Amino acid sequence: MHSETEHTADLLVTNGWVLTLDGKGTEIKDGAVAVGGDRILAIGPSADFGDWEIGTAIDARGGLILPGLINTHTHAAMTLFRGLADDLPLMTWLNDHIFPAEAKLDLEMVRIGTTLACAEMIRSGTTCFCDMYLFEGAVAEAARDAAMRAVVGEVLYDFPSPNYGPIDKGFAYTRELIARWQGDDLITIAVEPHSPYLCAPELLQEAAALAEENQVPLVIHLSETRSEVATIQERYQKTPVGHLADLGILGHRTVACHCVELTEADIDLLRRSDTKVAHNPESNMKLASGVAPIPQLLAAGVCVGLGTDGCSSNNDLDLFAEMDTAAKLHKVDHLDPTVASAEAVLAMATRDAARALGLAAQIGTLAAGKRADLIVVDTDKPHLTPMYSPISHLVYSVKGSDVTTSVINGRVVMEKGELRTIDEEKVMAEARQAAEKIRR
Amino acid sequence: MHSETEHTADLLVTNGWVLTLDGKGTEIKDGAVAVGGDRILAIGPSADFGDWEIGTAIDARGGLILPGLINTHTHAAMTLFRGLADDLPLMTWLNDHIFPAEAKLDLEMVRIGTTLACAEMIRSGTTCFCDMYLFEGAVAEAARDAAMRAVVGEVLYDFPSPNYGPIDKGFAYTRELIARWQGDDLITIAVEPHSPYLCAPELLQEAAALAEENQVPLVIHLSETRSEVATIQERYQKTPVGHLADLGILGHRTVACHCVELTEADIDLLRRSDTKVAHNPESNMKLASGVAPIPQLLAAGVCVGLGTDGCSSNNDLDLFAEMDTAAKLHKVDHLDPTVASAEAVLAMATRDAARALGLAAQIGTLAAGKRADLIVVDTDKPHLTPMYSPISHLVYSVKGSDVTTSVINGRVVMEKGELRTIDEEKVMAEARQAAEKIRR
Repeated sequence: MHSETEHTADLLVTNGWVLTLDGKGTEIKDGAVAVGGDRILAIGPSADFGDWEIGTAIDARGGLILPGLINTHTHAAMTLFRGLADDLPLMTWLNDHIFPAEAKLDLEMVRIGTTLACAEMIRSGTTCFCDMYLFEGAVAEAARDAAMRAVVGEVLYDFPSPNYGPIDKGFAYTRELIARWQGDDLITIAVEPHSPYLCAPELLQEAAALAEENQVPLVIHLSETRSEVATIQERYQKTPVGHLADLGILGHRTVACHCVELTEADIDLLRRSDTKVAHNPESNMKLASGVAPIPQLLAAGVCVGLGTDGCSSNNDLDLFAEMDTAAKLHKVDHLDPTVASAEAVLAMATRDAARALGLAAQIGTLAAGKRADLIVVDTDKPHLTPMYSPISHLVYSVKGSDVTTSVINGRVVMEKGELRTIDEEKVMAEARQAAEKIRR
Repeated sequence: MHSETEHTADLLVTNGWVLTLDGKGTEIKDGAVAVGGDRILAIGPSADFGDWEIGTAIDARGGLILPGLINTHTHAAMTLFRGLADDLPLMTWLNDHIFPAEAKLDLEMVRIGTTLACAEMIRSGTTCFCDMYLFEGAVAEAARDAAMRAVVGEVLYDFPSPNYGPIDKGFAYTRELIARWQGDDLITIAVEPHSPYLCAPELLQEAAALAEENQVPLVIHLSETRSEVATIQERYQKTPVGHLADLGILGHRTVACHCVELTEADIDLLRRSDTKVAHNPESNMKLASGVAPIPQLLAAGVCVGLGTDGCSSNNDLDLFAEMDTAAKLHKVDHLDPTVASAEAVLAMATRDAARALGLAAQIGTLAAGKRADLIVVDTDKPHLTPMYSPISHLVYSVKGSDVTTSVINGRVVMEKGELRTIDEEKVMAEARQAAEKIRR
């Protein structure tokens, strides 16, 4: 049987323009990616796989094959609050709308909101996300059930949580999550103190110790607004970054989300500590927080990943739209069309995002031996015709809705626009019911 | 025959949430729009049309029914150059890439590029566009063939044109266009001098006289960059707006595109002359031109319409993405989340855009007696579930690809995502061939 074939693959995604996004421009115009189990076995010209024994073949129909996008900062379950309140002063929005809505949340609503988020993310090309929210046990399970890769962590702060109550139980909850998901193929648990303004120094240091002990990421909001900087200056006579540096919270496993307000000294602290930055341009714009100094961070050599933040401040989870906005925002902010090039921004949503989350060995580029997280973009559309440069198209012209196929950890989670792991009708009905509770 | 029915309609778009966008919040949750010939006959609850005799019925399946979007500034045929060159200094981009590509253009290429643009625009919910380019006779015909509404005008400037040659022939060409399309249902011809920096005062004044004589719009680029302001200051010791005011070019039929660099006196001149502004935030960002003072213009009472500009500086024609960006950009620019509300931005792409183009009596809102230009948005999708506010969704969450049906001047041009007036495969093949010429 099959005596003439030497190679086998469970899955072959073929007949596409393979963009490995390895930073060296490695691409194959009529290429294919062979997958065995959860891994990429080989990448090469489609013709090279003629004698392989293939389980499932997916025809990319001349489209683009690239690594799945990685969302380095979101609050997935906030899909339930999308469009609940917009265009309001920050404190009105938070105190009169978001906090009252969040007070009604429970485990089941977080499961629903996260599953809905997974549907939206898979549809728009995202294969991995980093989440911070309440009831993160439900987030981990929802992501696992949707077969999405995720870094998740329960938000920790000084006041009692609707989930775990007092902070000591928050640490216990996080320890349990770490133990429960140890070694999981898809889920990584992180330690996630909310921010320097909602977390006392002792909380932050205990969080850092826990992350260090388990060698897991520490995810934190940092320097998001001028108001935060003023608060921390008043409280500690330091910048938020300086404060975290002095507490020993910065480091190569720390993901600092937002980093809108930074001094040159802050940038240097981030660089020297190899702290990673999650950049959320659309949320920073919509909440009128400001423009993060991304070109300066990149020039300093700081690793920057892209994120969408939650749906109540964006209002979507679409990284293609986020890339487009990121590239344009920094150009106008610097009055220089050469900053935030398409290539640099695409890296922020793939290779650099994987580095930011400590997953560079597994995902972020297409390479033999890496986990098989990849997407197919259909380019046979008016708004993608003609195509001079696939990199330009991916950042400036491709829409999330152009993604037809998604593979995560070797499993086909979407094919020809059909989700394989999520019952969309069911989760949309559940979300509408949950919205009724929130609206009341 | 039909003795029990008193009313007939050629088309009924039913079972949707009708948003008239009339500025008074008039909407009907389970509503329908009846169309006879090119006009809206009636708008009301779906149930009210039970006894009507209906030619064609389109079920909106609970989605949104709203006026078609209006693009107040583009160069449609530049779809052929999308992604040809990005992230370059403005003069390198223009001189080394765009101008050499444009030198290869001919009537047929403009027809192809415009038809491709029409496909993209219809698919993403745009039903009317205002175009400035070369070979605009081909643009008018392509729009007419696609059954799109358009305001088109041949670009006029001091140097010889690849289309008409010397400027006197440019005016003759414009006069011929005006005569040829007089009274057309879909096509309006405009007089379109390029800009104060590429047009001598005599050219501008002749253009204004021609527009006045024929009572057609005058469309011009104005105050797009700091460099333009410096040039005009040096040449005429005036701001570009002041220069046009002194020449008598401003007025209620003038559409000033971009208006990024404005003084308070400029804003007052625009207001007093009732000059309309076409705002192109994504192009202004990508080319690093700056941020137009839209909140100030709106506060002054200036009518502002939204536009995408051409595909080589955006790189798409998607007004849903443009609305999202516009709303966010001004918030971060002003560090105030209350400016550029979803409602204000949606008006810029509908009601105010119609006013800007002199078409307010015909389009821009849904009302009995107006031309039937409307679209249906499918909201039964994960990224649009739940829905607290359709206005928020339309600006912050709906994607162009969520538009399923489009009606222009009473004709169904797209239904269930299928274009009825354009052979997409053919025009994409033609565009790929054209791109080969351009690439060489």
